[in-house]
Amino acid sequence: MTPPKPLRTALIGAGRIGTHHANAIAHDLHTATLVAVVDPRTDAATTVAEQTGARPESETAAVLTDPQIDAVVITTPAALHRDLIIEAARAGKHIFTEKPITTELSEADECVAAAREADVILQVGFNRRFAPGFVAARAAVDDGRVGTPQLLRSLTRDPGPYGGDPARTPLWTIFLETLIHDFDTLRFLNPGSEVTEVTAHADALVRPDARDAGFLDTSVVHLRFDNGAFATAEASFSATYGYDVRGEVFGDGGMAVAGSGRTSDMEYYGPAGVSYDTSRADTDLLHGAYVAEFAAFVEASNGADVAIPTGEDGVKALEIARAAILSVQQSRTVALTEVAR
Amino acid sequence: MTPPKPLRTALIGAGRIGTHHANAIAHDLHTATLVAVVDPRTDAATTVAEQTGARPESETAAVLTDPQIDAVVITTPAALHRDLIIEAARAGKHIFTEKPITTELSEADECVAAAREADVILQVGFNRRFAPGFVAARAAVDDGRVGTPQLLRSLTRDPGPYGGDPARTPLWTIFLETLIHDFDTLRFLNPGSEVTEVTAHADALVRPDARDAGFLDTSVVHLRFDNGAFATAEASFSATYGYDVRGEVFGDGGMAVAGSGRTSDMEYYGPAGVSYDTSRADTDLLHGAYVAEFAAFVEASNGADVAIPTGEDGVKALEIARAAILSVQQSRTVALTEVAR
Amino acid sequence: MTPPKPLRTALIGAGRIGTHHANAIAHDLHTATLVAVVDPRTDAATTVAEQTGARPESETAAVLTDPQIDAVVITTPAALHRDLIIEAARAGKHIFTEKPITTELSEADECVAAAREADVILQVGFNRRFAPGFVAARAAVDDGRVGTPQLLRSLTRDPGPYGGDPARTPLWTIFLETLIHDFDTLRFLNPGSEVTEVTAHADALVRPDARDAGFLDTSVVHLRFDNGAFATAEASFSATYGYDVRGEVFGDGGMAVAGSGRTSDMEYYGPAGVSYDTSRADTDLLHGAYVAEFAAFVEASNGADVAIPTGEDGVKALEIARAAILSVQQSRTVALTEVAR
Amino acid sequence: MTPPKPLRTALIGAGRIGTHHANAIAHDLHTATLVAVVDPRTDAATTVAEQTGARPESETAAVLTDPQIDAVVITTPAALHRDLIIEAARAGKHIFTEKPITTELSEADECVAAAREADVILQVGFNRRFAPGFVAARAAVDDGRVGTPQLLRSLTRDPGPYGGDPARTPLWTIFLETLIHDFDTLRFLNPGSEVTEVTAHADALVRPDARDAGFLDTSVVHLRFDNGAFATAEASFSATYGYDVRGEVFGDGGMAVAGSGRTSDMEYYGPAGVSYDTSRADTDLLHGAYVAEFAAFVEASNGADVAIPTGEDGVKALEIARAAILSVQQSRTVALTEVAR
Repeated sequence: MTPPKPLRTALIGAGRIGTHHANAIAHDLHTATLVAVVDPRTDAATTVAEQTGARPESETAAVLTDPQIDAVVITTPAALHRDLIIEAARAGKHIFTEKPITTELSEADECVAAAREADVILQVGFNRRFAPGFVAARAAVDDGRVGTPQLLRSLTRDPGPYGGDPARTPLWTIFLETLIHDFDTLRFLNPGSEVTEVTAHADALVRPDARDAGFLDTSVVHLRFDNGAFATAEASFSATYGYDVRGEVFGDGGMAVAGSGRTSDMEYYGPAGVSYDTSRADTDLLHGAYVAEFAAFVEASNGADVAIPTGEDGVKALEIARAAILSVQQSRTVALTEVAR
Repeated sequence: MTPPKPLRTALIGAGRIGTHHANAIAHDLHTATLVAVVDPRTDAATTVAEQTGARPESETAAVLTDPQIDAVVITTPAALHRDLIIEAARAGKHIFTEKPITTELSEADECVAAAREADVILQVGFNRRFAPGFVAARAAVDDGRVGTPQLLRSLTRDPGPYGGDPARTPLWTIFLETLIHDFDTLRFLNPGSEVTEVTAHADALVRPDARDAGFLDTSVVHLRFDNGAFATAEASFSATYGYDVRGEVFGDGGMAVAGSGRTSDMEYYGPAGVSYDTSRADTDLLHGAYVAEFAAFVEASNGADVAIPTGEDGVKALEIARAAILSVQQSRTVALTEVAR
Repeated sequence: MTPPKPLRTALIGAGRIGTHHANAIAHDLHTATLVAVVDPRTDAATTVAEQTGARPESETAAVLTDPQIDAVVITTPAALHRDLIIEAARAGKHIFTEKPITTELSEADECVAAAREADVILQVGFNRRFAPGFVAARAAVDDGRVGTPQLLRSLTRDPGPYGGDPARTPLWTIFLETLIHDFDTLRFLNPGSEVTEVTAHADALVRPDARDAGFLDTSVVHLRFDNGAFATAEASFSATYGYDVRGEVFGDGGMAVAGSGRTSDMEYYGPAGVSYDTSRADTDLLHGAYVAEFAAFVEASNGADVAIPTGEDGVKALEIARAAILSVQQSRTVALTEVAR
Repeated sequence: MTPPKPLRTALIGAGRIGTHHANAIAHDLHTATLVAVVDPRTDAATTVAEQTGARPESETAAVLTDPQIDAVVITTPAALHRDLIIEAARAGKHIFTEKPITTELSEADECVAAAREADVILQVGFNRRFAPGFVAARAAVDDGRVGTPQLLRSLTRDPGPYGGDPARTPLWTIFLETLIHDFDTLRFLNPGSEVTEVTAHADALVRPDARDAGFLDTSVVHLRFDNGAFATAEASFSATYGYDVRGEVFGDGGMAVAGSGRTSDMEYYGPAGVSYDTSRADTDLLHGAYVAEFAAFVEASNGADVAIPTGEDGVKALEIARAAILSVQQSRTVALTEVAR
């Protein structure tokens, strides 16, 4: 039995996460090759291309029209996702896009339709579905040990101190870019159920000076699922102790808890007590999950029946994010059915 | 320096928790003696009295008029608290009452006023303030390591399977009896701040058959504090793995997490992986905290300046519980100022 | 059913551990009372007596001849144990002695004989048998989960920095006073088996300047049991992170690990990673175990059939310590049968 | 800056660990390619070759004479190591050999000399030096947090139930194949010091029926280092809970503990308490360490100055293993200087 040929991929968007992903595909994934790196910023494209042995490109068209390329990995700003996804689908390329699928629901629907019509894979970068702890938590749900989920929790806290620029951060980023992970995680840990209602609370506690400009850096969102389960999603832009990603699913059979920022199993005992190191970056803590999600993408692109977060999952998470935004705007609980296209 | 004479106490209410407390005072606390146990159910009073060397009484008046008794510990149903507290205060007895202080705010105010007028100690049984993990978490707030609290969590899950009788459970018990602990814990972990807003969600997920009768066994409550912090309180009446009490306070300096159901530091490694035992009962997991809260009560009664949860703390927690009930009734966020007396 | 009257005890030896024990008996144990505290240093006796409500005595005879005293707790230097135990036995008092039972085997045999002849309880202060983690580890042996023990480990590390005076420390203290705990623990975790062979290694690594005077502060001792199990006992006089007491028993069914210096279940997450506090003193970490061993002593003195470390257990541990000393002296493995009386 | 071309490697020995290593090099390491797989068992070579895209070979000469091959990875039985290493060195190939370097010291010396003369890299497969927990423990030694090591521990327990065939296991396998890892780990955690003395104890506790044939499956080895530190190495062929690899280094500054069989950070809370999964195989638990050691081998082969376990480290560990064997044979402590070539 000969294994399939490596999937020939092009990366579009040579920023921080794009650089990570390009290297992961080129160096840590034997089932794919990285053929090209696209970025209008020639320097960025060239740098990543040199790291990975790919060719630099400044135009997306150059990869979409290249028959030697099977798939694209989109790591541009979210505002560009819709056009790129639709064009890539029409060009017959399989598509891995970083989250969120898009920031507008109508555009997300278009993306899903385009991928379906072109019969290409459309996978969204919900990495936690591939992190071992979350995989094991889901397994504890699937095998019945958790029972019917009743109470769930998912949180994301970015490593602090926060060094971003609120003025350059799009409105609602905490929902569209950060909590979108948690909304997906909560669906992942409560499989077969969907969110019906959202009540969101948010403020600028890390950068209160930016509050008046609409910046939000801290949020707690309450979700209700159609199987009755309650869920809490929580985010902060600044955790002094590093990148913090955790999940909890409690049911009538038991509870599974996942997530730890530990970088190794070493514990140090000293005059100040016992301590262990925590991770400072997603590309560190979740590197293995990133590689695993690309491996699944390759398998799906090769026709295998593997579980991946699809475009539809991207839409579902975006619906929740949109409901959360509406909830904050109107200070009330919002039904998912209220979310407009 | 001679230590003060043991505080002479009477226990009122020889039920499950009263039995525990009577034994804790009689056997584990050298600064107090248990003189009498009051319960109209003569059998119950006698049983506990025999266990503890106290005298059984069927009438509260017998202890309130006894000049040889310095203090009372009230472990009756909450509906009786108001009258007992006011009578005890008027009789000049120091008062330790189990939570909640009362179930009605106006009555709670009366209790606080009565104790103040009589110049007696009025302490509410918020035991987590005395559990080592929660004490250490608060210390991490007080010494600045946590910084300004921004995100808090407190939860209570009773050991399952739930064996109670919904039909005999007063309405709103999950707020008035269970989450009242979490409301106090959240205030304890965010000292100097008060709750301004409450959004509560609740349902009967453990006993859905009792939902129509108004029974609620699962709840998630969102709180906002006046220092901007967001908090989540969570409760379930049935955790298969035992009694679960946890707290988390995250701030701009760091995070403190407290609470574990572990019964010892033993870990067993076997064919099914690694495991450790968890506690099945509050009187097991929190026995030390109960003894510590009585020790503090004795010290306070003897005039020492020790930190205890006061009647005022009882009122504050009850205000939150009442706001949570209103929030569930009206399916909306409720300001604490809306809570009627 | 009336509980027995409190056991009337006298403490002999008002040093550091004696002070702790006196307070534990007087304040934390409702089944015993502390009647007298004996120490030739009148100040010491008086201080402890005032703390506990006992009467101070300077002569042991005063308590041995007092018919109102049922039992003695011996916390003097080990060199005095033999005479005190024999006298107390002859006076018909039940006896709790701190470890080691004596430092000479022939004297230990005399003590056991005296207690047997007088039909009094003789219990040795092997506190770990009463620490919850070790109790649970033993339970995992007793219930078959560990299977037949094959590899065991026990260690004791005193909190550092070491502040003792090597010049005032008796020779072989690390074996007779420190590792004696581990020798007993290993027997406790391998019930029904006895040690056959000892190979000990020791040096002065904490205070190398005192090595030439025969001082030893660090040791590793290898034991062989008659069921084939291998065991390692380890000790250091100076652990920067606090008092460290751990045990491990590995068998053909699984492994149980006990012991942790944690002072609470709080974990702090900060810029330096995650940390938790450790205990600095045995009287802190093992306070509950001390109370539990006294409770068992009282029960045994009252005729109950409870498991306690007996004089015979004290002899067995001393045999191992003596073999370890011989092993160090002669740099070879020593059979337990070689240990001379 | 162009990265070096991938190192062209051939694997010699397509058994269990060879199969793992071939796949790791071919699939998880972008800095190397696997060109050939050698095994006289044609089926085995072909199977692994097909998995990895390499060419199968039945003769070692075919790869040693191939100028398109830069390096060999030796995973044959240890008895073949000496000849293969010397031949590969003479052929100018860089060499990665699984442990032990050889089973005879004189042969190990020859291997080191041959590699030195040919100026090729000779690395021994001491994988724990590349496992994150052990790396972090060593870092805590290097940065001074541990201080001067005084007490060390390293253990290896193979996953049970033991399914090997004692009759087909070479004598002393527990020392030469299993504990050799621990001997190296202890040197790794006490850098700059060397072992001076060995006292070994061993027996057949897992398979007592094979004891008379000289089979040994359980062992505890005591080591003394020239900086005074005491160390314990421990091994069992059968741990019911899976593959267990741990290390501990205690010094006058603090302690670092490494090693955990956890397969993820998920914890399950259920009716039987809390549990987590443990690893059942070295190729699972240590896969990342294997990849990391190959990455270091490639870098070293490319001339980089990276820390690797060298042939000399292989000799040192083998000296300790040989001393341990002599110690068991003669039931006494053996000085390392006694070990004959």
